[in-house]
Formats: sequence, structure tokens, C-alpha cells
Amino acid sequence: MLRLKFAGILILVFLFSQSEAQRHVIKIPDIPGYKTLKGDFHMHTVFSDGTVWPTVRVQEAWEEGLDVISITEHIEYRPHSSDMNADHNRAYEIAEPLANKLDLILVRGAEITRSMPPGHLNALFIKNANLLELEDVNDALQEARAQGAFLMWNHPGWKAQQPDTTLWWDEHSELLKKDLLHGIEVYNEEFTPEALLWANEKKLTMFGNSDIHGPANYGDGHRPMTLIFSKSRTLGGIKEALFSKRTAVYFDNIIVGNASFLNPLFFASLQIDKKPVNLKNEESKIIYIENTSDLDYQLELAQPGVGFDAPENLNLKSGQITAVELTGNSIEVGQMQNLKIYYEVKNLKLSNTDNLVVTITLQNI
Amino acid sequence: MLRLKFAGILILVFLFSQSEAQRHVIKIPDIPGYKTLKGDFHMHTVFSDGTVWPTVRVQEAWEEGLDVISITEHIEYRPHSSDMNADHNRAYEIAEPLANKLDLILVRGAEITRSMPPGHLNALFIKNANLLELEDVNDALQEARAQGAFLMWNHPGWKAQQPDTTLWWDEHSELLKKDLLHGIEVYNEEFTPEALLWANEKKLTMFGNSDIHGPANYGDGHRPMTLIFSKSRTLGGIKEALFSKRTAVYFDNIIVGNASFLNPLFFASLQIDKKPVNLKNEESKIIYIENTSDLDYQLELAQPGVGFDAPENLNLKSGQITAVELTGNSIEVGQMQNLKIYYEVKNLKLSNTDNLVVTITLQNI
Amino acid sequence: MLRLKFAGILILVFLFSQSEAQRHVIKIPDIPGYKTLKGDFHMHTVFSDGTVWPTVRVQEAWEEGLDVISITEHIEYRPHSSDMNADHNRAYEIAEPLANKLDLILVRGAEITRSMPPGHLNALFIKNANLLELEDVNDALQEARAQGAFLMWNHPGWKAQQPDTTLWWDEHSELLKKDLLHGIEVYNEEFTPEALLWANEKKLTMFGNSDIHGPANYGDGHRPMTLIFSKSRTLGGIKEALFSKRTAVYFDNIIVGNASFLNPLFFASLQIDKKPVNLKNEESKIIYIENTSDLDYQLELAQPGVGFDAPENLNLKSGQITAVELTGNSIEVGQMQNLKIYYEVKNLKLSNTDNLVVTITLQNI
Amino acid sequence: MLRLKFAGILILVFLFSQSEAQRHVIKIPDIPGYKTLKGDFHMHTVFSDGTVWPTVRVQEAWEEGLDVISITEHIEYRPHSSDMNADHNRAYEIAEPLANKLDLILVRGAEITRSMPPGHLNALFIKNANLLELEDVNDALQEARAQGAFLMWNHPGWKAQQPDTTLWWDEHSELLKKDLLHGIEVYNEEFTPEALLWANEKKLTMFGNSDIHGPANYGDGHRPMTLIFSKSRTLGGIKEALFSKRTAVYFDNIIVGNASFLNPLFFASLQIDKKPVNLKNEESKIIYIENTSDLDYQLELAQPGVGFDAPENLNLKSGQITAVELTGNSIEVGQMQNLKIYYEVKNLKLSNTDNLVVTITLQNI
Repeated sequence: MLRLKFAGILILVFLFSQSEAQRHVIKIPDIPGYKTLKGDFHMHTVFSDGTVWPTVRVQEAWEEGLDVISITEHIEYRPHSSDMNADHNRAYEIAEPLANKLDLILVRGAEITRSMPPGHLNALFIKNANLLELEDVNDALQEARAQGAFLMWNHPGWKAQQPDTTLWWDEHSELLKKDLLHGIEVYNEEFTPEALLWANEKKLTMFGNSDIHGPANYGDGHRPMTLIFSKSRTLGGIKEALFSKRTAVYFDNIIVGNASFLNPLFFASLQIDKKPVNLKNEESKIIYIENTSDLDYQLELAQPGVGFDAPENLNLKSGQITAVELTGNSIEVGQMQNLKIYYEVKNLKLSNTDNLVVTITLQNI
Repeated sequence: MLRLKFAGILILVFLFSQSEAQRHVIKIPDIPGYKTLKGDFHMHTVFSDGTVWPTVRVQEAWEEGLDVISITEHIEYRPHSSDMNADHNRAYEIAEPLANKLDLILVRGAEITRSMPPGHLNALFIKNANLLELEDVNDALQEARAQGAFLMWNHPGWKAQQPDTTLWWDEHSELLKKDLLHGIEVYNEEFTPEALLWANEKKLTMFGNSDIHGPANYGDGHRPMTLIFSKSRTLGGIKEALFSKRTAVYFDNIIVGNASFLNPLFFASLQIDKKPVNLKNEESKIIYIENTSDLDYQLELAQPGVGFDAPENLNLKSGQITAVELTGNSIEVGQMQNLKIYYEVKNLKLSNTDNLVVTITLQNI
Repeated sequence: MLRLKFAGILILVFLFSQSEAQRHVIKIPDIPGYKTLKGDFHMHTVFSDGTVWPTVRVQEAWEEGLDVISITEHIEYRPHSSDMNADHNRAYEIAEPLANKLDLILVRGAEITRSMPPGHLNALFIKNANLLELEDVNDALQEARAQGAFLMWNHPGWKAQQPDTTLWWDEHSELLKKDLLHGIEVYNEEFTPEALLWANEKKLTMFGNSDIHGPANYGDGHRPMTLIFSKSRTLGGIKEALFSKRTAVYFDNIIVGNASFLNPLFFASLQIDKKPVNLKNEESKIIYIENTSDLDYQLELAQPGVGFDAPENLNLKSGQITAVELTGNSIEVGQMQNLKIYYEVKNLKLSNTDNLVVTITLQNI
Repeated sequence: MLRLKFAGILILVFLFSQSEAQRHVIKIPDIPGYKTLKGDFHMHTVFSDGTVWPTVRVQEAWEEGLDVISITEHIEYRPHSSDMNADHNRAYEIAEPLANKLDLILVRGAEITRSMPPGHLNALFIKNANLLELEDVNDALQEARAQGAFLMWNHPGWKAQQPDTTLWWDEHSELLKKDLLHGIEVYNEEFTPEALLWANEKKLTMFGNSDIHGPANYGDGHRPMTLIFSKSRTLGGIKEALFSKRTAVYFDNIIVGNASFLNPLFFASLQIDKKPVNLKNEESKIIYIENTSDLDYQLELAQPGVGFDAPENLNLKSGQITAVELTGNSIEVGQMQNLKIYYEVKNLKLSNTDNLVVTITLQNI
């Protein structure tokens, strides 16, 4: 039906009739000292080569439970321009009132879109996208940086630009030196192992972004996203966290990041039975672990328990209580104050070769 | 990622990366003499007050399994016009190449958008939407008709235009007389009983349409749609079927329409055990009915079986085989050639008061 | 495969291989002063006319997230007896070790199974089911009571015993007087309105039970259950709560019970934005309500807001945040300390005619 | 509620109240010359170490869409025997009337349960299970064979019997020689590659069975099963097919079997656009393939097309139409009568190393 013309009402008619104004809750907990914000810093609308109106990006993100997004139109590629007469700031301006109404943080951004090297780079936290339309890519990046931008290398593994290899170019080393490169997409449609390697080696902030062009439709799954460990749920807090490299990358049932964030995230996801186990030799006891997060944590025993046996594999399913059976295998176990179990968490990745190893400590007597 | 610029490729990169180029099959069978086509004749894009690019409408419809759509932009209401510089034919022109590639039938249409009476009317099968921009509504409708248009009254029960009642106005009788009104939306976001009454009384073609503005997102359900009983899967076939009133309206788990279409549709949906039942007094036999359609048919016994008992209620679930137990209750049943069971199909509606009654005939001996 | 013979291990091989030892969490919160336990006090196994082994009942209940069950075999109806040689206590004895291991509370019970009146009655918290095998129903009930039993009238609306009406018989009044009737099933396969009426009028504890005979298979739904508002998660706590009528009945998306339990349950299910609304005339504000329970709460405005408009209907979906828009409609609203919104909760039933009405109070300035 | 006592009715009360008497349709098509029957030849009930009544096995199988099952109680292991007083034929006798009523084929069987070698063997199509209770395993197998049995080695990879290796023993060669071994479980809870190797090398009939002990609960998935390519849907037809090695093994989204069955099965699953492609150099055309089976077929290009490019990977999803784009890359393509595309079907396995390769032939001009 025709939407009402009064602007203040338009938004809500839209929300309530089409989407029932319901927001999904992404269950990834805060960690000590930080809020765990959910963000997507790469997306398009009809104002570059996307196929939705900017308000759709805000509404989708709000419904999916994101805290922060950036609409990052291509500066140099605008296939719909013959039908649209708008400058590079227009998508942001259209999206902003709805973002404010829904308390979604909107980062002003743009995608500087060049051939390789240096490829495509997102400029986040800029002030005026129109000023980035400059012939020389260095001029464009310098202008963005002068506006205070955080600069991220997008999809370094994109086959259209590097069909056979995924290389780090001298030009990227140059950008790093000139403070024109701060982050890198470790995930954009797919995981790029080289990008994870470089993020760790060269101290780049790691990102997982959707780079969505059409309507969002993640079914029972979720959009790839960047987790931001931020001191506050504010634009400034997020900017500080990105420049301080406090992010992790969440896609499928996997989080990639630094152990200093992933270890507290794992334990903040769980409620572990507190009462003493009271395990004795040749007896078995069940302890219960509830996983209140959205992830299924896949655990593999990293080393045998001392004095007792624990399951070789555990799947701590999202929203469920898992029964874990421990069996005493020595007389000493009856005297042990604590039981320590060491598990590798197969879907919490630190690097291309290492996963997080956690120590679950249970009071025994 | 940036889509490739070569036009011929653009479409398919789009299809394969975003949607995996997979088309759902709507399981509503053909009936003797006609193909049962699935259509949606009311939708919007950014070119009026919608929020998606026209190609999205084509791709959504193709993926959902529709055969025919019409993009029907408001002639008189274009809230995005300050950002767009395009005429009233532009949405069709953008959608057409992808529709051709995907073999989706695209009907050129427009929505003549006026206050009540006569409200909003869709003009379908027009040739040039720009010519409909005329001050007097009658002039606009006459122009559409002169182009060969089929004219449909949209959402007659819309509260914004008729908050307290749903009335048929003298103006609509006038339109009928002048051959300027051929169809009516019985379903648009919700079912309108008055519209069904008028469709039956005044011989109007009945429609169920989505009137979608944002991205389609029907989850496990389906879009409301118009079933067209057409001699061929062509634009001409559809136009002939619409002017001949050969449609039905499909929403939720309900089809509304004429018994002459709904009765064959019901039986074309089922595979009923052919072998003789061989029912005898005080014995019970099970017959099997497979429902290969998307609907769950909800049956209620319309009158008792002669010589045997049959279940009071049956739910013939979609894609399942239902076991139906018959029990002989007279000696005569052993001599009966055929068993006839009379069921009312609660979700095949003929009018606001009547549902289809079917006769299931089984060979007994 | 063959299960290992060592008894202590048998249980866990079973758990881990077949069910992955995962327990669902029923999200119905505790209320001030009480734990909200989830129970099912009516079920059968192969030891009467059911079709599963008693351990299956324990495992199903544990996996579904129940806290307490009672296996209530028919005393008088044992169709498998030619294949089984066991007394009336055997199902309990087989189930008990697994219940202990899994920390599921198992109530010893039995179903006294007679024609109407008085029909079928469950005796809960008995000590020896074998002693209930007595010819006279009053003797059987007296024996159960002498063992300390809580007595419940099962499925009073069962068509096999009362095909045309659902009556309260003089015999039931007699039982009440003699302290031989304490509870009634308001839900058993279906809701019985008469039972709800009698529970309220005659001060009977209300129950919702599964009366399950075959394997549990509730798919995406849940088993009908009794909510027990108990001072502790112990057998004794539950017995005290049942005799004190602190229960509610949960089936489909509905809870039936007393307002003194349902009102705190509703508010314990929600997280409502705490920050001041700051609503002013002719402005609209959005407040957010997160529903952390398993129910979708369906709200209908019970009376208009004073000084502002609130949505006529709200569906607070399970696990989601709902945006609720308030719009000021008087100058006074800007001065109001609090905003009070009165909603009827359509799926929290107090009686056959009344639903719970809640007052949502928001700080305004 | 209490089930009615009249035997003829009991079954149907059970069916209609508990399961709604609905049978799922397994969409795996017949192939030329054979019906593709779905079977499970290994399962237990309370009469050995299972936990359900025999009728449950029949009802589960009927609801899941199976055609044939065998209840195969352990002869030598009956942990419930102190509670049950029944001989080895009892489970079959209890299950048979319901199987007859529901037209499910029930094979009389038993599991000869010994330590390794030879481990556990199922005897199918026997006449009297009681006669198999013999001390010497060879005597037991001979007796089964004398009754006409088909003999199958169960779960050869079971860790409890062969913890570190999966070996073929001299004893099995002996059994083969003596006509006392005809089939082998390639899948039982998990896939056993060694069993597939032996099935191919030693000409054993391959099986996939559930070996289910508790209630069936396959959620959105399906039970592992044996596909039988049978001349008729009869007990005799199945026996002939098993002895003639006309089976395949279906688990997860995989079928393992001989190319002579898998190739026609693949093509019987598909509806491929018949109209000429009309492909020309530097043009692209879309052809449509509908997959009407339950499997998602995962295709990988086995060799390049001659004169045209085809997608490297295709996922022909169950119940969907997949659009396949072909692009001419030579002038000759315009003259080619047929286009041949060679795909490896990754989830149709012939052996541990080889998958089925199919040739899709399209008429071009």
C-alpha cells in the first residue's frame, strides 16, 4: 500500500507493517572491561552498485541485532548514475535519521576503488565523501586520512584482482609506513588465510564484513561480522577500539581473533556448575555446562586430565546444557582440591595453525 | 565485491554469487485444459516508493517460483524523485533484460493512485506509463484502456482510505459500465471479504497480490499470489485468462476461487490408492492418499458414508501420505461397487460462507 | 551396537551415543520467592500400556529440560502382562538410578484406573504401588492417602468416559470432603475448560500433563507441562507446592494460572529499557522490550494511555527485542513523571473468560 | 489416556492420536527395471537390549517412509530378561499385525552376537529364531542358513571389538567359503571404508542400517538405510535382490553403490530442460535442471566442455530448479548437434576413491 507522506510517521509505518519491528539478539557476551559490539563496515546501496535503498541497510542491520554499520559506496564505480542524481554523501544522509531513531550507530564511510595495487580500501569515520573523488589514489587516501579516517584493505584475496595468488605488494608496505593502512578484511564472502597472517604479522586490525549489494537474506545463519571490544557503545568508542586493534571476526560458527579476547569470550559464554565435583577413583560424576551464546563450541581434549578421564570431544551446543562425565582413574583424585581440564576450542581460531586452548577448572573437594 | 562491468556477465555474476541461482518450485498443479501459473501483479521499487532496484523484483520472483509479475509504480506518488531522474517506464526497462534471461514473464503496468473514490487502480498490459500522468482520473483510466489495459481495483479494504467501512461507490459502478474495471484485489496484506463478495456478484477477476515495497522475505511461508489458469505460459495467454476471469487467490494455506477450478486443483494435488478397498461389514481397511501439493488440505466430513464410517476430520499434509481408515457398518457394504466419501475442504473457499465440497470415489470390489 | 554390560557405564554410553547428552533449557523464569520448576506427572511405559522402557521417560524428560516427572502406570490395566513379569513398583525402580545420575526428580506414582465416576486418578508421592491393587476404588484411594499421596483427577473431559458432557459427579464432591482429591488435569492432550472452572471454584491444584504412552516427539514445540512454584528444587519442596496449589499449566503458547504467579512471571520474562522516555506532545519515542522467555506474549491495549498513544497490539516475540513506539497526544505528557500502559496478555489465562492485565510503568522524566 | 482394549481398534487409536497417521515420502526414485525400496535390516526392542516395544519400530518405519525392516534381537544378550518372559520370536509376533495393517514388509531376523571373530552377524529371512540359540557360532550360522537365511556381518569397524584396527579375519574367509556370509554393513552409526572395500572385492551385498536401540529421532535428517533395487515390493523380491547384491547405502547426503544403479538413479532424480540450447560463440544461455529427489547433488566439472564453458561447480539442490549457464567459446559450437557436459557427482560414491562421473547431454540445434 501507499506509505503515508508525513516524514516522521513514514519510518514507523514501514517498520511495523513490514518487519514487525522485531530485533534479533546476537548472543555473544561482553567481556571484562569491554562491550562486545557487532559491526559490519562494508556495504552498498543503489547509490553505487547495490540494489537497495539506504534505509534498508539500517533496518536489516537493526533487525539482525548489529550495533554499528558503515555504508561504503564506491567513489569510482556508480553504474546507476544515469538514473540517480546524487553526490557521494547522499546514502549516508538518507540512512541517518532512521539510524538515529533506532539507535544504530552509523559510521560515515566510502570505498576507494582502484585496480591492484593497492586494490579497494574503505575509509571509515570520514567527514565528506565528495572530497575523495581524486585521480591519484594516494591523494584520495591522504584526503581521507586528513579527515581522520581509519583505512582498511578490502578483500585482499579477491580473484578478480589477484586470480592466482594473494600477494602483499610494496605499495601496501608504503601505505603502512605513511599511516594510510590500519585494517584488513580477513573475511569478505570467504575467509582469506593470507589476510589473517598479515593482520597478525603487521599489526592490522582484523575485519569480517558482508560487502552486501542486494537485500540481506541470511536465513537461519548470520551475516559475517566484526566484533568490536569497545569501552562504550558510541561512535567514539568504536573508533578508539578499531585504532587499538580490539576486534575479532565472526563468520559461520567460527570466531578468529586474539587469545586475550577469545579466552574471556569463551568463559563469558558458559555457566559451569559451581558445586564441588567430589570425584573419587573408579567413580564417575556428571558436571553440567550451559552455553548461553550463539556458537556451538567444539572442544577436543588438549592433554589428559591428571587423575581422571574426561571426554575426548565435547560439543557445547548453543542454548543447551551439556552433561560432561568425569571418571576417576587414580586414588589421588579423591584428595585433589581442583580438577583442571585442558581443551582446544576448534572453532576459536588464533591463527591459521593455532586454536584457543582453555583450562576449565572445577572445585573437587 | 565490485560487480564486473560487462553487461552480459553482470546478471549472472549477480545470480550465482548472491542467490546461487536456485529456483523454488511452487507445487500447485496444472488442471485439465490449463496451466496453473503463479503471478503477482502489484509491487514497487525505488522508482516510486519502494526500496529495491527493479532487478531485485525479478530475481526474487524467479527464486520464489513465480511465472509472471508486474512492477506497478505509482504514477502520482514518487517520494524519491529528488534523487532519481527517470520517467515512469524506467523500472520496466531495467527489469526487462533479466526477466527475459530468466524466462519470467514481465507485464508492463502502473498504479493510478487517487483518493477514494475510486482509490488506487492498477493498469496492466499497458504500453507507455508516461501517458497515464493526467490530472483527471477518468482520463488516466481511459488512456490506459486505450492502450489495452486490464484495470484492477487495489486493496479496497485499505483503512487509510476507508477507515471504518469498506464500501462500493457509485464511481465503481460507473467504471464497470465504462469497461474501466475488470478485477479486484481480494487479498493485499490481508483478506478483504467485501472484495470476494463483489468479485462473485459483479463478475470481477479476483487477485491476490503482495504490494511489496521492501525486499521480499517470506521465510518458510510464501508470498500472496494470483493463480492464473492459462492456456499457455505466455503474456498473451495470461492476458486472455485475466479478462476471462480464470484466476484464484492463494494466501497462507488457503485458496479462494471458483469451484470449477478448485475441484480439479484438489484432485490434481492427490494420488489416491487405486486398488479395490474390499471393505466388509465390521472390518476396517486403510487407504492411502498422497498429497503432492504445497497445501495442507483440511477436510471435514460433509455427510456420513453409506454403509461405512470414515474419519470426521482429515489433514492431508503437504508432501505426505495420509492413512485413512474406513470401517464397514452394514452388510450391504460388501456388495457395493464404489464407496463415495463427501468432504468439505475447509481451506478451499468459494465465497465468504461456502467451501468446496469434494466427492472421493473409491473402487470397492 | 551392543551396549556394554557394566551397569554403571551402560547409562552413559547410552546418553552420549544416542542423545549427545544435551539438555534443552526451558526459558520460563523463576519468580520472586519461588523457583519455577517444570514437571510432568502423568506418563506410561511398557510396564502398563506404554511402549517405551522406563529409562526412556527419564532421558526424554532430562533432554527436554524438565525438573520432575512421575511414571504413573495403570494399576488395573496392563495389556503387556503376558510378556512381562513385574510388580507395580518395577518401572520406578528401573528409572530411579538414571534419574539420580541426571539429577531429575522422580516422584513415585500410579494411576488408579476406574470407570466413571470417579474415573482415573493419579496418586503421587506414594511409597508402594503394589498395595493400591484393591477392588474398591475408595479403598485404593484411602491406601494411597495413607501413604501420603497427593491425588489428582485425570483428564475429566475424556470422551471415552464422558462422550457428550463433562460433569462433576457427587462422587467427586465426596472425595473432596474425605481429603481424597487435591488436583485436576486442566490439560491432557487438550485443554478442558470445565476443569479450569472447577480448579478455581473448588480450590484444586491445576495440572498440565502429557499422559504420554509412546516415544516423546514434540518437534519444535514442547510437551504440555505443569509449572510448580516451589521453595526448593527437591521432592519435598514440590510436594509442599502441590498441596499449596502453587502451579500453573503450560501448553502451546499459553500459560493458565493465578494472577499472583502469572504477573511476576510476565515481568521476570522481560527486560524493559530503563532510561527515561522523555516523551513530549506530538513527538514519538521508541522503547525497547526484550523477551528472554520461550513464550511469545500477545498483548492488546486494555485502556488508552493518559497523554500518549501506544500500539493497539504488540507481539513480544521470544528471544527478540520489540520496538514499541509511543506518541505524545497532550501537552501534559511532557510533565508526567511516569507513563503507565495497560495491556491484556491474551495468552496468560486466569480463567475461561479472563486474561491477565499488566501495567507497564516507564519513567518519563 | 487409556487405549481401548479391542485389538482391531487399538492400533488405529494409537496411530491417529499419536502420530496423525502421516507417512513421509522418501524421494529417491525407481530406476529402469527396478523399484527402489528403502530398508533397515538391523534394530532392537525391549526384547533384547532396546528400549521400545516392537510396534514402535513398525510405526516409526512407516512414518519415515521405509518399505521394509527387520527387528534383529540379540540371541545371546538380553539384559531385560528378568522382567520379560518371552522367547526369541516374540518381537516379530508382536510387530507383525501392525506391519500387515500398514503394508510394511517385515523380515524375520535375529542377531547372532559373538566376540570377534566373527563378531555379530544378522540372520535375515529366518523361520524360527529360537533354534539359533546354540553354543557354537558355526552351528548357529548353519541353522540360520538351513532356514534359508541371508547372513550379514554387522558393524565390522566397531571399536568395542576391534579398537585399533579393522581387520578381515580368516574366520570370515571361511564363512564366505561355506556360504555363511552374504552381506556387510558399510554404514552403522558411521561409515566404515574397509567394509566398502571388502564389499567390492569379495562381492558382498552392502548395507546401511540404523542398529537403533532407543526411539527413532532423526529430526530434519533421515535414518541411514539400505536401498534395494527390487523387481517387486514383496518379501520375495527383496530376498532375491539381496542375494543378487542389488543394494546401495544411503546416509547423510551420500549414496554409496555400484555405478550401474547410481547412474540411472541420478538421471531419474532430474528433470532437464528438453528444448534446444541454441548456443553460439560468445553468447551465454541458461538451462534449467530440476532435482525432484531428496538429495542435494554436488557436481564438479570432470573435464572442460568442447566449444563452451560450463560452471566448475554445481549444487543441484533438492526440490529446486538450478539455473546452469553455458557460454560458447568457439565458432564451432554453433554447429554442434549436442553439448556434452561431464560432471563428477561428489556425493555418489562408487568406492573409497572414486565417485560417479555422469554425462549430461543437451540437444543444441
